Order: sequence, then structure tokens, then C-alpha cells
Amino acid sequence: MIQPKVLKGFRDSLPRQEIIKKEVIATLEKTFSTYGFVLIDTPALEYTEVLLGKGGGETDKQIFHFLDNGGRDVALRFDLTVPFARFMATHTHHLQLPFKRFHVAKVWRGENPQKGRYREFFQCDFDIVGIDSLQADVEIVTMIHSALVALDVEKFTILLSHRGILNELLASLGVENHSTEILRIIDKISKIGADAVQEQLITLLQDQKTTDTILKYIHSHKDNTPFETLEEMRVLIPSAETHINHLQQLLTYVEHLGIEDRFTIDPSITRGLDYYTGIVYETLLDDLPDIGSICSGGRYNDLASLYTKQHLPGVGASIGLDRLLTALEELDHPLVSELSASDVIIFNQDEELSIHYHKTAHLLRKEGISTLLLLETKKMGPQFKYAQAHHIPYGLYHTEQGQFTLRHLESRTDYPHLKLEDVVEHLKRM
Amino acid sequence: MIQPKVLKGFRDSLPRQEIIKKEVIATLEKTFSTYGFVLIDTPALEYTEVLLGKGGGETDKQIFHFLDNGGRDVALRFDLTVPFARFMATHTHHLQLPFKRFHVAKVWRGENPQKGRYREFFQCDFDIVGIDSLQADVEIVTMIHSALVALDVEKFTILLSHRGILNELLASLGVENHSTEILRIIDKISKIGADAVQEQLITLLQDQKTTDTILKYIHSHKDNTPFETLEEMRVLIPSAETHINHLQQLLTYVEHLGIEDRFTIDPSITRGLDYYTGIVYETLLDDLPDIGSICSGGRYNDLASLYTKQHLPGVGASIGLDRLLTALEELDHPLVSELSASDVIIFNQDEELSIHYHKTAHLLRKEGISTLLLLETKKMGPQFKYAQAHHIPYGLYHTEQGQFTLRHLESRTDYPHLKLEDVVEHLKRM
Repeated sequence: MIQPKVLKGFRDSLPRQEIIKKEVIATLEKTFSTYGFVLIDTPALEYTEVLLGKGGGETDKQIFHFLDNGGRDVALRFDLTVPFARFMATHTHHLQLPFKRFHVAKVWRGENPQKGRYREFFQCDFDIVGIDSLQADVEIVTMIHSALVALDVEKFTILLSHRGILNELLASLGVENHSTEILRIIDKISKIGADAVQEQLITLLQDQKTTDTILKYIHSHKDNTPFETLEEMRVLIPSAETHINHLQQLLTYVEHLGIEDRFTIDPSITRGLDYYTGIVYETLLDDLPDIGSICSGGRYNDLASLYTKQHLPGVGASIGLDRLLTALEELDHPLVSELSASDVIIFNQDEELSIHYHKTAHLLRKEGISTLLLLETKKMGPQFKYAQAHHIPYGLYHTEQGQFTLRHLESRTDYPHLKLEDVVEHLKRM
Repeated sequence: MIQPKVLKGFRDSLPRQEIIKKEVIATLEKTFSTYGFVLIDTPALEYTEVLLGKGGGETDKQIFHFLDNGGRDVALRFDLTVPFARFMATHTHHLQLPFKRFHVAKVWRGENPQKGRYREFFQCDFDIVGIDSLQADVEIVTMIHSALVALDVEKFTILLSHRGILNELLASLGVENHSTEILRIIDKISKIGADAVQEQLITLLQDQKTTDTILKYIHSHKDNTPFETLEEMRVLIPSAETHINHLQQLLTYVEHLGIEDRFTIDPSITRGLDYYTGIVYETLLDDLPDIGSICSGGRYNDLASLYTKQHLPGVGASIGLDRLLTALEELDHPLVSELSASDVIIFNQDEELSIHYHKTAHLLRKEGISTLLLLETKKMGPQFKYAQAHHIPYGLYHTEQGQFTLRHLESRTDYPHLKLEDVVEHLKRM
């Protein structure tokens, strides 16, 4: 006998989790489709060289890679951005730019598993590539807004910032050579707090005044409206005017669309990754800020420079699907509690009637009613238990003369003497 | 610069392919859901030992396996059946039996790539486990029928057979010790023809009469209705009566459901795999028989005996999704030609109007209309070309005083002087 064990950091997804995941993904895909975004897919396995690029980062240690039977060094993708860059380099000649794509797929990282962190997880990425226009930024942040509204997530905030403004500030302070470390420190503010950021900046820069100016900048949104924040920034960093104007224009757009309530500016948002160059953002759930950003992204200057000479600027974001699903569960979101796989269960009380049970099921299913048929005659006790375990709201009894009784299982309310068309009508109304 | 190459036997999936694949998968999932089947997922990566079981087959050579950073021997799944068996052994204590599940996911095999065969491909499996009743067979074959009808595949035939009848025949002929080889030879009949099967059987069995009887059995459906075939079988193999009755009952069920036209008996169907024990089937497209079976399956005696002592009989089938997609393309199926990612494209003729473009897009999308917004002002030529490349049927112009002109792009028919609500109405009607 072989022990049926699953690898550390991996897990099965049971029907209840799959129903919710499928519903969330379908809602996201539907939203992205209404924006004219198209789906792509790439192989799970690629040349290690293609995925790691210049290498040298954390990823090198986390990537699952090996020699295949043909002696090729191959690896499982660890994100969807790198394969997308490779995809664009491969196909750019027969794609019309700008290209608007989304991609929902599994990725793999050999990290040490923690609560809510797995070695196999889903990412959901969307990008507009091949255009360097603020309008693309507008479309991406609007789409994030629409996706969360479509998911009935009511209270969320999209925090905006601009990498260029911070870069200008660091240049004006003469500390641009430390910019990577400074970005990383600021990026941790929501985890470690402002005092620790101050301490680490002083340790790094050995200068109180420079540190104070940086802190003043990343706090410039405190007690200010977004437009007041922009004014503070203008005073603090006159050289960043173009970037500040871009941020202002973005806010004006969302105001015109009537969705500005969900947007704010937070200059401490930096998105640690090197490749962001413009407006960047994170999305927090107002009732669960500690869970962190459920959707982050921004503008980058060049997507695929590792693989092609073609300049491909773009803007995109990524939804942390597992984190979002955890959040929906914690928020007791209706999706989590209300979903049932089947609308009705057909009770099986008499083997002689089995052909009738199949016929009834066939007709209900043709009407689009999800019907679970019990395939063996059993006592009612186990049948009720089976229905309950599957969260099925209604049960159907076959009675004499081709009639039916429909029962709402939780309330034990019976609807007797029904014809099949009445059953259909009742179930469709529910 | 790194060459953006993809591994041999792997491929990207471009938007047009993804749209079709997504639509086909969504239709299948919807059908399976109306049958009360639930979705599960399992990790792509498992212990090699768990996936290979006793090993010794072709799979050992084809499986992608390696040592992970923790020194574990791990492998990518090569089908969905083995992970499902492991899944049932892991979770059976908190699942209510019978368990009806489906699973649509990628699998990987290091085969030599051929036309239409890849090292990464999709499988779509569905099973009813934990019940040994003919009614489960009925439900599975009915569901195959419903799935193909839902996909608007009109002409198909489900070929039925019973492994037990053939086994009884071989026992009565005293050649049951050769049954595995005989099954393999018969299984190839559609590829190599009846003469070659005869030749190979004679070479194997060294007996003309035995070979003739086997051939008589696998041809017993020629020029016969299904019920006549069953009668021939009764005469030929009296000891197989129980199995023949089961096949007859299955046919009676589908007759009662009014779908018997798509079913026939073909005794040459054996499904080479060792673990099938009862009724087995394949599904051919009448207009493309050479493409082979697009959905095959049958009854097995025990799913998970490698991992658990619990006896788990079941019945299930698998759709070869890539083969089905190829077939739909060859058949010029409407799905392949008609799908477009977006309903309408908003032309961008004046940068000053960009806020209006975004507002219009926002309102159309709220109505569920998939709207592609051009994010840069360009000449009309490139804009038409972009629309055409994306197969978008309608284009929208903004004219004076907040009015619109909608153009059907292929016929160049204009609908001028529209208000936004007229545009919505028109597009929804299409």
C-alpha cells in the first residue's frame, strides 16, 4: 500500500473551495472581457534560462527546476509576468499593439510554507502593453475597481503613488544611489511602522534631515484630501511636476467616472520591484487592512527587454487570488455561504421507479436546473444526510400518478401535488 | 539577449484559441453542474511514488520527475485518474459517497511530439465513485450525450461494449491467459483494420477456429440493430448473460430518455487499460471518424486500491479536450468562427474627448457590453485594422452634442444620430 500523501506546501482543492474559486475567477474574467481584454496561456514548464533571465534574486533559490529527459534545464513558472514578457517577444510581430491580455493560472515557488502561503498558488494578471499613455493607467485602475464591485466587495481602497516622484525626491536629496534600499525600507512601513522606517533610514543614510524630508513626503497624505496631498508634493519636490500632474490627471479621470471615493494617494506605496517606473498602486480591503494588498501593479518602462529589442512599455496589475479568497471567507461574503452545487436532489425511494427518476432528472437538467440524482434506493435518513452534506436546498419526491412533492429541506416546507412544470417554475423562481 | 524560445512539445495559447477553449470548458462545466457533479483540483506536482504506483509501464519513461530542493522525488501528473485515486484515499472519510466529481486540468507527458500531440495538454475527467450500480453507468453516458448536445456537436455516436462479455468469451475459448494481448490487438482494429487483427491473433494464438470465433464476436454488430447484436451475443457466449443483460438495460434507459439514436454497440471497443471491468465506451464524431474517440470511459472495479483498503468501485470517462478542439476547428463549428472578444470598439479621433471615451466605455461595460477602448488618438486606417484584427463587429463614433454613430464594420452600415441608450439597445439586440 502506498501512503496517499501530498507534498509539503501543496494541497487538494475540495468541491466547496472550487465552487467559490470558480465563481470568483468567472466574475473576474467576465469583467476583464467587458474591457476587451483577451485571455492567453503559456506553458507551465519553460527553459530555466528564459524564466530566470539575468538571475541573482530570491527566485533562483525558490524555482522548481531540473534536467528533463532530453538534458534540457527546465523550470516551472514562478510568476505570470516573466512568461508574458517571453510571450510578447515571441508573438509581437503578429499581435496588434496595444495588446490587452489577462492570464489566470497556477505558479510554483519552493518557499517555506506559512499560514496562507503555499508552494503552488494562483495568480491573476492583466496588462496593457505597447502603449505609453496615461489612458492605459486609467483603464487598469478602473478595471480593478469594476472587478471588485462585480465581486460585491464593497469596502476597498486603491492607494496610488508614483515612483517617479519619489525618485525625483531622492535625486534632489542626493541619495539616489541608495534608492533601491530606501524603496525596500519604505515598502515595509505597513508591516513595521513609521518609527522603524525612520530608524532604518537613519542607519542607512546617517542623516537626520534627509530622513525627515523622506518621512515628510511619505506622510504628505495624512489629514489631506488627495488633491491637497498633490499640492504638498508640489511644494516639497518642484522637479517632479510632470509626474504629479499625471497623478492628478488620473484622479480627475476617476472623478469623471464617479468612482473617486475608492481612490486615495499614499506616497509610501513603492512596489519594491525594480521594473516599475510610473504610477503604482495597491488595493486594501477596508475591513481587513492587515491582510495586505489584494491587487497591486503599476506602470513599467519595458516589459520584454531581456528577449527583444522592441520597446514594450506597459501597465498592469496582479490579483492575489488565494489572498482574495481567504479575505472573502473572513468577511463572510455571501459567495462563500450561499453557493450550492445543486439546486435539487431527487430522492430514490423505489427501485422500480428508477427510469422515472432518470427521466425527471433529464428534463430538469434540460431546463438548466442542477439536479443531483440518488442512484440507489435507500432509507430517507441517509438521503437527507447526503443532501445536507451537499448543501442542496430542495428535495423532490415522486408520488402517485406522476405527481411530485417538492421540499425545502432546511425549513421542511412541502409543496405537494405538483406537476413537473410546476416544479420547474418553482425552482427557477428560487 | 535571451532567445524567447518555448520547449519542444509545448506551446503558447493565443487569445483566439483561448476564447474557444474557455467557451468549450465553460459549456462542459455547466453541463456537468446540471448533473450535480462538483469540481475538484489536485496539485500539479506529487510524490513520484504516488503517481507511478507499482510502475513498470510506458508512463515511467514519459513522466517528468526530479528531486526537489528538499531531496524529495517529485513528478508532474501525467493524467487526472491517478491523482483522483490518491484524492479519494486522502479524503474519503469526509466525503459522502457516491462522490460525483469532474476535473479539468493540464497534464504532462514527455512523449515524442507528433501532429496534434503535445507534452502539455488538457484533460477533462468525470467519475461517479463509491457505487456499483448500472444507474451510475446510465448517468455517465447520458452526461456525455448532454455535453455534446450542449456544444452543438450534432452528429456523434457513442459506441458501447462490455469488458465482461469479452472476458467470458476468452474464458470459454480457453485463451484467458492471453487476454491482455488479445485486448490490445482488438483495440487497434480501427487503426490497422480487421485483416491485420486476424493475422496478429493467429500469430498469437496459433489457432484458426479460436481466432474466427473472436472475430465473429467483434463483428456481431455488423448489419444488426443493437438489440439484434445482443441476441447474437447470447447465442455465442451463453455464460455472459448477466453482462449482456446489463448492456441491454443501459440501452433501455437511453431509449426511455429518447436519446437512443446516438448509441450503438461495438464489441471491438475494449479500452486497453487493465482497470476497466464492466461497460466501456468510446465516442466518435460521425463526420470525422478518423480523429478517433473524443470521449472514452467505462466501469472499473476499484479506483484507489493502491492507497486504501476501502473498496471504491466506479464509472467515469474522459474528454480529450485538445482533440475535441481540433475537431471543432475541422468541422467549421460556429463556435470557432463566430466568437469575438469584444462587442464594440470605441474609436479615438480627438484627444480632447478622451474623458468622454472613458465615460462611454464605463457605461457600456456596466451594461455587460464588452467594449474595447482605443487609448490613443490615431488615423482611422490603423483603427479599422486594429478592430479587424480583433474580430470586433461594431465601431462607435462620438459625434457632436453627445450623439453617436454606430457602424457595423464588415457591411459598413452606419446607424447615425444615436443616444447612448440607443447604442446599448442596438448592441444588446445583436
